[in-house]
Amino acid sequence: MNRDAKFAVLGGGSWATAIAKMLCENVDKIYWYMRNEAAIEHIRKEDHNPNYLSSVEFDNNQLQLTSDINEAVENADYLVFVIPSAFLKTELDALSASLQNKVIFSAIKGIVPETSLIVGEHFHKTYDIPFENIGVITGPCHAEEVALERLSYLTIACANEDHANFLAEHLSSEYIKCTTSEDVVGTEYAAMLKNIYAIAAGIAHGLGYGDNFQSVLMSNAIREMKRFIKKTYKMKRNINDSAYLGDLLVTGYSVFSRNRMFGNMIGKGYTVKSAQMEMNMVAEGYYATKSAYQINKEKAKKARTPIINAVYQILYEQKNPKKTFIKLSEKLN
Amino acid sequence: MNRDAKFAVLGGGSWATAIAKMLCENVDKIYWYMRNEAAIEHIRKEDHNPNYLSSVEFDNNQLQLTSDINEAVENADYLVFVIPSAFLKTELDALSASLQNKVIFSAIKGIVPETSLIVGEHFHKTYDIPFENIGVITGPCHAEEVALERLSYLTIACANEDHANFLAEHLSSEYIKCTTSEDVVGTEYAAMLKNIYAIAAGIAHGLGYGDNFQSVLMSNAIREMKRFIKKTYKMKRNINDSAYLGDLLVTGYSVFSRNRMFGNMIGKGYTVKSAQMEMNMVAEGYYATKSAYQINKEKAKKARTPIINAVYQILYEQKNPKKTFIKLSEKLN
Repeated sequence: MNRDAKFAVLGGGSWATAIAKMLCENVDKIYWYMRNEAAIEHIRKEDHNPNYLSSVEFDNNQLQLTSDINEAVENADYLVFVIPSAFLKTELDALSASLQNKVIFSAIKGIVPETSLIVGEHFHKTYDIPFENIGVITGPCHAEEVALERLSYLTIACANEDHANFLAEHLSSEYIKCTTSEDVVGTEYAAMLKNIYAIAAGIAHGLGYGDNFQSVLMSNAIREMKRFIKKTYKMKRNINDSAYLGDLLVTGYSVFSRNRMFGNMIGKGYTVKSAQMEMNMVAEGYYATKSAYQINKEKAKKARTPIINAVYQILYEQKNPKKTFIKLSEKLN
Repeated sequence: MNRDAKFAVLGGGSWATAIAKMLCENVDKIYWYMRNEAAIEHIRKEDHNPNYLSSVEFDNNQLQLTSDINEAVENADYLVFVIPSAFLKTELDALSASLQNKVIFSAIKGIVPETSLIVGEHFHKTYDIPFENIGVITGPCHAEEVALERLSYLTIACANEDHANFLAEHLSSEYIKCTTSEDVVGTEYAAMLKNIYAIAAGIAHGLGYGDNFQSVLMSNAIREMKRFIKKTYKMKRNINDSAYLGDLLVTGYSVFSRNRMFGNMIGKGYTVKSAQMEMNMVAEGYYATKSAYQINKEKAKKARTPIINAVYQILYEQKNPKKTFIKLSEKLN
């Protein structure tokens, strides 16, 4: 273990806070960028993030906090991006520091709306970063349980095995176990798709379907995810590994998932607009649904995706959720 | 659909009551055997089972209730056994009517303790019933949701496709969808193994593990189930179909599952004996654990089954649950 390794965490939300905590178990100092200067001041004075996982106590000697993304990027070799995908492009537009020779890991779940690319591809295409320097950190992992130091498993995917192992080593601890994988594209799509299936689970719940149906829906969802990813990037993978099935389950069965909550409101009759206003945010799966639908539509050989299609019709074509789910239920088995 | 088809339901519990309800949607009359004469009297007078799913109203004109197993068997062509596996042998010992030329479906989840056989094999070996006349009805399906007429999916497995289709047709309704399968052995083992994994989920919860760990445990459980069944009976199957993964999820994630509840008490420090006394019953997964462990142990080529082994050690070798799960967690990924 190299306690001097130069990491930067970019983002100030709950998952960023959890990753900062994991790294602080293993390195002496991390750069931590967040936009919110008041939060930075609070962390400096009170040793915890005022807005997310505030039970986590940091040692300020380990934190180089900054609201200047360039400062964090310039001073680190390993960049962990944890900025919501909807804001990523805007944040990166402020970047003047070079990303060349940096190892970039994404812990972002979703699609960059402006380019309709998953985050790894966005870095590759927009910044010309070679794939061997791009990786993904994926769950199944609720940040809240990291705060509680409850045993959790991460998958670290990178085409370059050394980078994956290096990240795995520096994130592991008593309560974090890391597996490595070469499947950057597949794990990232899985992390994105699972949010759509969580919306579907929420809609089903909102419509009054029970646990029997939910288990059938999840069983169909993992088969659909397998088909989708296979058509996107074919390689040998076990879709039942934690990074795919585990991540689907922890989100689909969580009553705290914002995507599931959003779906639940849709199932109960809220319009998309009113559900988003009520939640005061846009669930990531909302964008993911559109992207996944379009990505699949543009393929020469389409994957069969009845669940994504149903969610798309409800969210983007104002189809009646009840009728749409009755039709969907005919396609499940 | 043949409304005159002669069905007998054998058993008086909640799952038997749910299956009787499903059949009554499609046939004019069923034979329904249960030991408990008071329950029979109650159903005759009050139109519902006093002990299980009592919200379900029956039309007594459709029911030929009897406490004589021979009467039910003699008068039916299709026998649906829904007697807990621990009592099956005793009940069958009272049988003088012939089972020859009957089509036997098992909706029992578990192993017959006296013979360590799954139910289909027990009928085949003990009563010389050809496999083409033996089938399995499996979930994912909580009986309680059938009572509420919430959409549920069943899998009907039989080597003889006609029998499977016939059962599927007579169990289907507005709220029940049936899929057929040829994998009698695999679906039956899945139904048995899932109870062991539900105990494991309960132990984990009792020990204080969170949702992140549970999703990893379930992801490992389905891979373990696949290995186990493959070593037992190799055929082409998709382990993510509802009969396998769906059934695992509906049980593993259900807080009402008696197996999960039993595991939870063990995780919280109850002894096996005191947990059983407290619950006033023996969870089916308790027997299944011993059988699965022994079946695997006796195989020339064993499947790798860290979860079954851990549950076995805790339940039958009095190993410390906390320490055993720490060791188990090292083997998961």
